[in-house]
This record gives sequence, structure tokens and C-alpha cells, in this order.
Amino acid sequence: MAGLAKDRKHPSPQLLANLRPAETARVFIEDVYPSIENGRFAAKRIVGEKVEVWADIFRDGHDILSARILWGLEGELDRRTAAMTHHGNDRWMGSFVPDKPGRYVYAIEAWTDTFASWQRDLKVRQAAGQPLEQEIEEGWRLLDRARIAPMARREAGSPEAAFRALAAEELAHTMAEALPQADRSISQDFPLRVDRPAARASAWYEMVPRSQGTEPGRSATFDDCIARLPDIAALGFDVVYLTPIHPIGQTNRKGRNNSTIAAPGDPGSFYAIGSAEGGHDAVHAELGGIEAFRRFVRACRDHEMEVALDFAIQCSLDHPWLSEHPDWFQRRPDGTIRYAENPPKKYEDIVNVDFYCSDWANLWKALRDVVLFWVGEGVKIFRVDNPHTKPFPFWEWMIREVQRQDPDVLFLSEAFTRPKVMKALAKLGFSQSYTYFTWRTTKAELGEYLSELTAFPTREFYRPNFFVTTPDILPYQLQSGEAWLFKARFALAATLSGAYGIYNGFELLEHEPLPGREEYLNSEKYEFKTRDWNKPGNIKGYIAQLNRLRRENPALQQTNDLRFLLLDHDGTIGFLKESGDGTNAIACAIAVSGAEPRQFWLHFGDLTIGPAGDRKRVAALVNLLDGSEHRLEWGGIRLTLDPAVNPMIVFRCLP
Amino acid sequence: MAGLAKDRKHPSPQLLANLRPAETARVFIEDVYPSIENGRFAAKRIVGEKVEVWADIFRDGHDILSARILWGLEGELDRRTAAMTHHGNDRWMGSFVPDKPGRYVYAIEAWTDTFASWQRDLKVRQAAGQPLEQEIEEGWRLLDRARIAPMARREAGSPEAAFRALAAEELAHTMAEALPQADRSISQDFPLRVDRPAARASAWYEMVPRSQGTEPGRSATFDDCIARLPDIAALGFDVVYLTPIHPIGQTNRKGRNNSTIAAPGDPGSFYAIGSAEGGHDAVHAELGGIEAFRRFVRACRDHEMEVALDFAIQCSLDHPWLSEHPDWFQRRPDGTIRYAENPPKKYEDIVNVDFYCSDWANLWKALRDVVLFWVGEGVKIFRVDNPHTKPFPFWEWMIREVQRQDPDVLFLSEAFTRPKVMKALAKLGFSQSYTYFTWRTTKAELGEYLSELTAFPTREFYRPNFFVTTPDILPYQLQSGEAWLFKARFALAATLSGAYGIYNGFELLEHEPLPGREEYLNSEKYEFKTRDWNKPGNIKGYIAQLNRLRRENPALQQTNDLRFLLLDHDGTIGFLKESGDGTNAIACAIAVSGAEPRQFWLHFGDLTIGPAGDRKRVAALVNLLDGSEHRLEWGGIRLTLDPAVNPMIVFRCLP
Repeated sequence: MAGLAKDRKHPSPQLLANLRPAETARVFIEDVYPSIENGRFAAKRIVGEKVEVWADIFRDGHDILSARILWGLEGELDRRTAAMTHHGNDRWMGSFVPDKPGRYVYAIEAWTDTFASWQRDLKVRQAAGQPLEQEIEEGWRLLDRARIAPMARREAGSPEAAFRALAAEELAHTMAEALPQADRSISQDFPLRVDRPAARASAWYEMVPRSQGTEPGRSATFDDCIARLPDIAALGFDVVYLTPIHPIGQTNRKGRNNSTIAAPGDPGSFYAIGSAEGGHDAVHAELGGIEAFRRFVRACRDHEMEVALDFAIQCSLDHPWLSEHPDWFQRRPDGTIRYAENPPKKYEDIVNVDFYCSDWANLWKALRDVVLFWVGEGVKIFRVDNPHTKPFPFWEWMIREVQRQDPDVLFLSEAFTRPKVMKALAKLGFSQSYTYFTWRTTKAELGEYLSELTAFPTREFYRPNFFVTTPDILPYQLQSGEAWLFKARFALAATLSGAYGIYNGFELLEHEPLPGREEYLNSEKYEFKTRDWNKPGNIKGYIAQLNRLRRENPALQQTNDLRFLLLDHDGTIGFLKESGDGTNAIACAIAVSGAEPRQFWLHFGDLTIGPAGDRKRVAALVNLLDGSEHRLEWGGIRLTLDPAVNPMIVFRCLP
Repeated sequence: MAGLAKDRKHPSPQLLANLRPAETARVFIEDVYPSIENGRFAAKRIVGEKVEVWADIFRDGHDILSARILWGLEGELDRRTAAMTHHGNDRWMGSFVPDKPGRYVYAIEAWTDTFASWQRDLKVRQAAGQPLEQEIEEGWRLLDRARIAPMARREAGSPEAAFRALAAEELAHTMAEALPQADRSISQDFPLRVDRPAARASAWYEMVPRSQGTEPGRSATFDDCIARLPDIAALGFDVVYLTPIHPIGQTNRKGRNNSTIAAPGDPGSFYAIGSAEGGHDAVHAELGGIEAFRRFVRACRDHEMEVALDFAIQCSLDHPWLSEHPDWFQRRPDGTIRYAENPPKKYEDIVNVDFYCSDWANLWKALRDVVLFWVGEGVKIFRVDNPHTKPFPFWEWMIREVQRQDPDVLFLSEAFTRPKVMKALAKLGFSQSYTYFTWRTTKAELGEYLSELTAFPTREFYRPNFFVTTPDILPYQLQSGEAWLFKARFALAATLSGAYGIYNGFELLEHEPLPGREEYLNSEKYEFKTRDWNKPGNIKGYIAQLNRLRRENPALQQTNDLRFLLLDHDGTIGFLKESGDGTNAIACAIAVSGAEPRQFWLHFGDLTIGPAGDRKRVAALVNLLDGSEHRLEWGGIRLTLDPAVNPMIVFRCLP
């Protein structure tokens, strides 16, 4: 055993000039979990929940190691510690519980436990009947080094007593504290983003504010929106997400169905942000201005809901920034402004800011300050429009700046693009992300997609928000307007993903498309609209029931603890979800294709549920829709499901 | 598209003070292959073979990217470049071929191809029938920036001609070179260790030099060893590995069968290195001293074999270092030297150096210089004894120091310990490693172990050397001495692993154990020994035949391209190996348990062989032992194998 005779020096960087400092470590710390791109990005966790940290920790030779986690909020001087224990094959684990939201860092520290190693060898020698005189003297010297020798040495009389004193387990604990750490290694810092629970689980209602009134052909106000809140709260939603609420440009204003010429009185697309009235920090006068918005925020709070705003960076041609900061925008060779475009598509009513213009720093700050302005108005969630067409570095900087000032703020990434770009945005800081859910309709597609989302590493940083429809997307599957399919898609979104959303009108089964397109006919993006929110055939009761089940069952307030169940019907998907503490387990069978009634076998096999250390096979089910109880037979249950009645069966599972 | 109007500045570190520089990159380079622990360690490759590099490369937005590899020997100022191409889903690949052994580094560089992006949009606009005047003017301005505009602009007359000129593919190539790289990102450096082919494929013969003579009771000399070389060369071995050749200590010399008291005339363990004659850089006088060793090295070279030496760091109590450098060794409280031990085991004839003594730097240099001394004597391979009980940082430093001076030098790690420690030594620089092969005897065990060794990431840094026996290990399975089992274990080692070895006496089926132990009775580690090298029953013909097949078939000169074949007999294992270029494919069926004759179906199914781009199913087999040819039926072949005749069938596969 090395390290006994005196304090050791480690090889200096001078001799090992060709090695980086980390390479001179004797104790290796490898394969650390959780870690995204080797600590380049933060893994995401929820406040109040246990963070498990795993690592391979080992060194050459046979000495005993100790290891612990050093963790804290980024920038905190004092790190907290959490012990790690060995779980076999040189893999160690420790855990801690962050008590408030924020950006954390953790590192792993490991070292040789000199005394414990010596003590183990002492006992082995004693058991082998070897002479121990020299070893006992070494023990006293170790105690000398720790300055606790005199007392211990005095207490021991005979060699046997000395052995007992030196072999005592308590002494190992004392000495572990008293001796300096030998061969100490410390890992790099790994970041962790810890969010409030709404980041993972929330039911969103997407509302177009100007469509919430009752008078056709004119804009609703926020007071009309307030009048809608009791109904939306009764449906069980957590977040009311508003499409942009700002003044709308006049120049090149879009007409109905995205026509390039607006008729007189056409309100224009609310994504053409800014007019002489103001820009991203103003509220459209027709909605009632900022005071009406403040009333709305308070009213949402009274209904235990919160407001999410749309952060869409483009500007209408009348946005104040165009005259105040002409250098934030690109011009064409003839000096005219460069409209937004995605060739051959043109967006004549908007222009994009130029993130790498010469005055970029002030532009970036101005955009950050827009978000901070609304944070000041009590808005803590932002749905970000098309983030994938803006620079990655901007998002990383902006989200961190905002969350440093208010760690409760959440951002939802509305990127429908290539998978690695969508994932990169999540890594860069977006709290939630839109997904391909809308286009995953078959049992096989849903199974594959959810398996990807809930597997390492995606599950560590990508929190899905399953929207069934959006103002831009009316999927082909729903264009037939069948009620059972609307219910089924809703049920899938609300149970498969911790966070999900509907867009107003979904509850009324709105489904008329632009022919041949996945877009709405007569979209309210370009015109005023009123609705009968209690139109016959609506599925509001269905929505309310399922949102209640979500609130009552923590298993449905998360995404990643998901296991698919064997179910012998191609048009029906079955799965089991469980809460982190193992106290709540929910099984669902949901029709995904074919409207016909069906019978099938839902098979649980050997799947276990329950708290760690007390896992048991699923034995019985409680139907949460009718309260009936069923015992499993042969590991499963035979079920009948008629989508026309209800495309979903949902059970609480009992061990 | 950003980046047109003028040269852009990127956000300065001042504004983005909370971001590290890498975080301001707009183009992401992720999931780089090959990479071990994120570039902390080198992946291993063979000189003259293609190194494929893969990475996810993408940015926000829709602009077109370019990427390339920058590679070269570590420390070289000029990097060579290799283009990368997009293979789908934002994954890119490029390759290069290192032309000499050494430590290389590579990085990936990626950037926005401004002109290609602009040109793509131009074509889309033209196809959509949009006016192009402004775009064409932008094109000229891009050419202006690249200082090639005047000529191009002059050539174009009409707008149509201007479009044709600006849309030309050659112009995209010209402009890619002429314009500065926009949004340039560069990855970290990733190291690569490139070795000569012997690192991956070599047949080792472990020789105890003093046992190569003919006169009982006395040491052989290197001239006796030289007399043995024609026989060993005829067996087809590439490497003659010698157990330690140094003077042996007198103090506490071990007697026969590791007894603590040596009888007069006992030679002692050759692992008790050093006496008054000299230490690690001396040759035992009884072997003939350094001159005899030099003759031996030359004789090996004449037989196209090379010498491997044993590097065992421990010292006998009579090693010159004990008096010259008393501070390199630990003492016990009473002042006596601390023997090597692994409690409760004691090794009274040796002491370990103290790698962290105060004079550690000179100790480390002295050990390095021992290796360099033998390198100077023409030895390019070192088998290192028990490296896992010496500090990791020492090995990393020492191996790099030696290989910097001579990149042909190879090190074999003799560590039989916990898997992660064995793998760590391979990552730190050992060119080859001993394995658990000796204890993997059943079909299932062999399948699992080889799957682990040949899977990512282990295959990238861990090169196995399968020894069937060693002076320390006579596995229980071979203690019955059955010839078919010796042949089968030999066949498994020689075909499953690119590198393998036997210990002298294996060819004579030596198998007498210390009762109840996996060790040899009357081990030549502790006594003089002579043998009849042509003893009846030897399997030298078998060994020679298989080594010849290894040399003739590149598929057997590597480890990682291995696929197990379905074979309906539990005691017989089947597999397919293929050379990197796809020109050679070998299938084997080898009996691993049960001595009885057997019939089985060897199933190839849809497995394909051949060069990339021209892969075909296996259609026919040539039996390499008898020359017979067979066509596959139903994707397989029915075979009869009698272990008593030959436990192996080996085929060359034809498409």
C-alpha cells in the first residue's frame, strides 16, 4: 500500500509536461451520469426530486476509495456534499435533492481512503495469523499523522487490545475525516437545469385572444378573454397560451386565408408584429391595451392558471424598430427592405432582424429586454416561434440571462425541423419542445417515437409538449372530423406526455382544411372569428375528465417512466406509466386506428410496480372511468373497447 | 440567409461573458467518432488503413454547410485535410489513411458555404418564376467580395446569361475556395494511436530461456535458445516472448514450487530481478550475458520473428537500486525493507519501488530508460508484468515517452483484474492486453465475451491477446490433458483474436497441476527444466497448420470484424470473420465442450460478405483443411465434426 510513510507529493506538471493536469490523476472518474455532450449542456431535472449521480470510479492497485458529490447552484461558493457508495463493478452512486429552481453544477470528488485500506490489510493479516507488531506500529503512526494518536495509544495495553483499537470501525470513520485525502481526483463540473414542476407537466390551452368575443367581425378584448376563463379552468387546463397580442402592421397586411392583399377591415396576421402603436412590448389597442392584459393575468391567477405568451421575433414593416434601428435589418441591393422568406416562399408582411448586424449586441439585449418586460408583467412562460431559424448562440445566451433573473421562467421551442436541430434547441436551454407527435398516428409510429423520446440521452434534456393541433397544423388524420379520433388524439397527448396542449376550437372538433393542405380553412390567423363554445357535439366533458385524472395521478405528470404493454390488436396501443416514487401506476389502452369495436388481451406479464426495494408484479386494476375492479389472470386482462363510446380505457394498477 | 451584405462580426466574449468560447459557435459538431472518453484517450488504428471519422454537423436555419477533417501527427504544424460529406440526418463522414505509426490528432472544421446557399436559393427562385434582378445583383456583389467578379460580370450579357453564369456548379466550387469561411466552428482535437500491424495481429511463443537447453539441472544459454528458433519459426510464430532474462537475487530466493527456502543450486524465480551482477538492464550470466542476447535478437530477425521482453518492475533484495537509491523503496517502522505483498500473501524475494517517493521523478525516468535501453538493443515489444498495481499516470507518461522516441514499440498489459481497470490500462496506452479468455470456456461465455470486446467502445482501444496458458495459469479445463481440448483452445485463440499466444510446453500438452490449483506442478519459474520438444503426442503439426492459415487469410489478422453464426449444437461455436477490405472471409466451427462426434447445421442466413458497395450473401465454402468445396443450401450447411480427429472446421467463404 502506497501513501503510508509520509505525506506524498504527486508528479509535478514540470516532469509530465506533455500531459494535461487531469491526466496525472491516479483515481479515475469516468462515464458520469447525468451528462449531456460531456457536460457541454445541462441535464434537466425537477425541483424537489432526487437527482441520482452515477460514475465509474477506480484506481490502480487494491486500495479502498471514497467518493462524494459536490453540488450547488452555479456560482455559489460553498458546495454541498453527498456521499457516493459503490454499487459493484467499480460503479458508484450518490444523490441529492435541489430545493429550488435554478442552474446547478455538480462534480465528483474521489480519493484513496488510506486508513480504511490499511485497516482492511491489518484484519486480513490477523486472520492469517501473521505477526502484527510492525503493522500496529504503522497504525499508531497513521494516528499520529491525524493527531489523534496519543489518546488511542494510551488506551491500548496488550497487542490484542491494540489490534482491537486499531481495527475498530468507528476509528475508520474518524480517520477518514482526520487524514488528508490521498490521490484526490475531481471531475469537471456538470451542469443541471432544475425547473419548477410545470416544466414537465402542464396542460396548455392555446387561445387566440381576438377570437374570444361574441360580436362577429370585430376583435374581442381581454375582458372577453376573462369571461372565458371559468370555462377553460373547468376543463382543467394549467396554462393559457396566447398567440401574439401586439399591435399589427398595416403595410403588406395579409388578407383572409393568407392572401397577399387585405380587404378593408381585415385585422392582419398577429404574427406581423408592430405598428405605430408600438412593438413587442405593446398590447394591441383593440384587445384593451396593457391594463386589460394585466387584468387578464390576474384573472388567470385567480383561476389557478398561468399565462404563456408567444415570443415571435419577426417585425411587421411598421414596427418602431425599423425606423429606430434601421441597421438591425437587411436591405436588398436596391435599398429596399429584405422581407422574410424561405425561397420560394415570401412573407411580405414581415421582416427578420439580422442577428449578426454590426449593432448585434444592442439587438440581442433589446430582445432579451422584451422577454424581461413581460416577466415583469407576471408572465413566466414563453412559447418561442420558429427558434430554429435564429442563431443557436442567441438562445443559449438569452435563456440563461432571463432564467438567472427569474429561475421560474420557462421556454417552449416551436421548432418543426430536423431532429438534431430540435434536440439542439432543447440542449441550449428550451424547457419544453414541440414534437412530431402530430404526425405519429399508427401504433408502431407512436411506439417508436415515444421510445426515442424517453430513452437516454434524449429524455435527459428534451421535454416534449404534445400539441394535438395548432393554428398552423390541422393534421390529415383529423380532417374527417370524427369525434372518436379527436378524443383518441387528445387522450394520447394527455397521457403519453407530461405536457400537452390543444388549440382553441379543437374541443369543438373544428376540422375544415384548406383543400389538400394540413391547414385550416378561413384560419383565424387572418380574420376575426367568434365561436359557440358550447356547440353540440363538443368534447369538453371528455377533456375535463381526463385533465382531472391527470391531476389526481402523478404517473401522468411525467413522460419518461413509460413502458409499452403487449396488446394483440394493431389499432390499439397499451402502456403503463408510473410516478417517480412508485406510489402511482396508470395503465392505458387507447384506440389509434379503425373505428370498429374491438376485443384484445392487455398483457402485463412480469412488469413490476411500486417503490424501489418493494417492487411487485401488477395484480389488479381499478378502472378510473367506472370504478370497477379487476384481478389480472395469466398476467393480463381481456378487454372490450368501442371507440365510438370511448377510445380509451384507463386503469390504476395495484400490486 | 445571413452573411451576405458585408463581413460579419460574431458576438464578442465581452457580451457573452457567461459563455465559454465554444458556446458561441453557430455550427455544432457533436457525437464525434472515433472518440474515447470525449477525446481524453486515443482510439487505436493500424497504419495504412482507412480511418473513418463521423460527426453530427448542423446549424440553425437552412444554409448549406461544408466540413472537413484536419489531421496530422501530434505536434506537426501543418495539418492535412480530408473532405467530409453529408450522409443523412445531419451525420457527416470523411476518412484518411495514416502512412506511418505514431500518435495522431484530428479535429473537425465546419462552416457555412455562403455562396452555395445563395446559389441554391437563386435556383429555387428562378424555378418559381420570381424576378431575379436583385438576386443577380447580390450574386455580383458576392463575386466582388471574392475578387473574381469583374470577369464573370463582363461575360454575362442578358439576365438569362447572368443567371446561367451565377448558377454554374463550377462557380460554386471556385467561390467555396475564394470566400472566407462563415460561421467557422472547429472541434477539439481527438487523439489517435496508429500502430504497426503487429499490434493487432501476431502469434506469440512464450519462452523461458533457461529451459531451452538439453542438460538437466543447469541453465540453458541464449545459444541454446538460438538452436530452438528454426523449430519455432516452422510453427509459424511471429513473436518470441522471453520471461525475464536478468540476474536473479540470492536473498530470500524461492525454491521449487514457490517454497520460501531455496535448496542449494535452485535458480530462483526469474521475477526476482537483480543481483550484484546488475538489474533491469543486465542479462543473467548463465544465459550468456548481453552478447549472447544480441546474437539471439539477430537470429530471431533472421527467422523473421521478433523478440518481446518482460518488463517486471519489482526488484530482488539484491538489486543494485536498493543500495544506489534506498529512497526508492519503502521501509517498515523497524527500518527493514517492505517486501511486496498482497495481504495475506507475501513475496519475500522481491520489493516494489515506491512510485510516489520523494525522488519519484528520477525513479520514473530510470524505469523509462530501462525500456529505452532494450529498445536500443532492438527489442520493440514489451510484455508488462502486473501493470494494474502501478500508478495509471506512470504508464501513460512512460508509454508516450517511449513511443515518441520509437513509434514502433508495443506494450502488452498483463493485468488480470477488474474489467474497468484492465480497460483503463488499454486506454492509457497499452497496445495489447491479456484477457479473461483463459476462463471463458463455454459457447455462451465465449459469445458474450467476444461480443463485449468487439463492440463499441471497447473495440476502439482494447486489443486482446488470447493466451491459452501462461507460466502462472494452467486452467482447470486443460488439466485432463486431452489433446482435442488443447487443439480446440488453441484454435479458438488463434482464430477469434488477431493476437494470441502459447507458453512453451503447451505444444507438448503439459498439464500437471499443483493439486486443486490453476498452477503448474514443478513450475519452471522456480527450477531448471529440459524438455523433449518432439515428444510423441505433441500438436506442433496442428499449430503450424493453423498459423499458416492465419498468415494466408487477412480475415484472421484482426479481431473486431466478427459475426457469430447460428449453429444448433451447444458444444460447438460457429463464427464468420472478414478482412477490412472485404476480400477475405473465413468461417469456423470449433468444438468447445463434449468430446463426442457431432452433426450440426451451420447457418449463414442473409449474412453478406465482400467489399463495400458489392456485398453478397455467402454462397459457397472452401474447406481450407482438405480443399473440398460446398455450396450452401437453404442458407447453411450440414457438417459432421469429430473432435478426436480435429475440433475445428475452417472454410473460406465465397459470395
